[in-house]
Order: sequence, then C-alpha cells, then structure tokens
Amino acid sequence: MSSPPVPDAGPSAPDPDALNTLVSLRASIDNLDAAIVHLLAERFKCTQKVGALKAAHAMPVSDPDREALQIERLRRLARDADLDPVFAERFLAFVIEEVIRHHRALAEGGGPGTPA
Amino acid sequence: MSSPPVPDAGPSAPDPDALNTLVSLRASIDNLDAAIVHLLAERFKCTQKVGALKAAHAMPVSDPDREALQIERLRRLARDADLDPVFAERFLAFVIEEVIRHHRALAEGGGPGTPA
Repeated sequence: MSSPPVPDAGPSAPDPDALNTLVSLRASIDNLDAAIVHLLAERFKCTQKVGALKAAHAMPVSDPDREALQIERLRRLARDADLDPVFAERFLAFVIEEVIRHHRALAEGGGPGTPA
Repeated sequence: MSSPPVPDAGPSAPDPDALNTLVSLRASIDNLDAAIVHLLAERFKCTQKVGALKAAHAMPVSDPDREALQIERLRRLARDADLDPVFAERFLAFVIEEVIRHHRALAEGGGPGTPA
C-alpha cells in the first residue's frame, strides 16, 4: 500500500498545525510587547523626572560612569535570562539615546513630550 | 528675618535632597530595565520558535502585513500609556530587525544563538 495523500501540505499551503502554532506564538509576542511598552512608559516617567532634576540642578545630561554600570549589569542579567548580551547592550544604548534626546530638549526649554 | 542659608547648594555641589531623589529614580529605572530584559528574553524564545517553524515550513522570514498590524497596535498602546508613539514604533522596528537577523541565520543553517 502507498502512503495516504497529504492534503494541501507544501510551501504554498503550510499545514494547519503549523499555522495554529504560529498564531499562538504571535499572541504571546503581542502580550509580551504590550507589557514591554507599559514598562517603557514607566521607565520614561522616571527618566523625565531625572531630566527635570538634572535641568533644575545644572547636572550634566549624560553620565558615562552610570551608563557603563548599567551596560555591565544588563549584560549580566541578559546572560542569566538566556538573552544575547550584545542585544541587551544595543537595546540599552537605543533607549539611553532616546532619553538623552528628551533631556536635551528639556534643558533647552522644550517640554518632556517634545524630543528634538 | 532673612531666609536660613542653604548649605552647599549650587551647580558644583547639588543639594543632598536632589542626589537622594536621583539615586531613588535610578533604582526604579534599574528595576524596570531588569523586568524589560526578562520580557525581551521571553519574547526572543517565542520568536526563535517562530523562526524554526518558518524555516521548517518554508514560510517567508519577514511578514509586512503582520508588522504593519504590530506597529499600529503598539502606537495605540503607547498613546494609552502616555509613551511617545514614535518611540514605540522605533523600538519595535529595532527589535524586529534583530529578530529577522536571527531568522535569517536560522534559515541559513546557523543556530538561534548565532545572529549574523
């Protein structure tokens, strides 16, 4: 006897199980993204307060020593969580760059909601 | 009566209250970063499974329709959370770019831990 035909399987029509798995994984990714966006919103509330404090007390906008400590800590946390530490470092650099833009705008008289 | 003197206040020696506030805000930022790194680790576990699924079923690595939906949703979530939607969109683009690098490496026979 020959094998039973496989219905609609192939590159042009992925099997239903694979599509169901994809839909389920994407739902988890969407949930995680929503959580991350809300944590980023909270993080920016903190950095806006830091920005206002620095502007009021003439503290420097960036702080290389603090950033070096943050990078080393995040790389360690990433390794522990099985995340590529290089990605964690690039992620932090991306966020800090955005925060510094906000701080500069604040120091130059713009509001926290007006990044340059 | 005149106001009491303010000890050591000035640009060269920020007042202790301001420094205490800065230390407290930075502790909150560090806590939020740890949470975000762990959520990103979980997100990458999901996208690595998506990458393996796509490679096994010859599905395209990137999916512009899905990405457009993700961007629109994250912009809406960001607005609701009082986060700059432009930043949320740039953040998602940054993460997706990293994920696609992982998927490409996987499709070309590299492991999930070997982004190009």
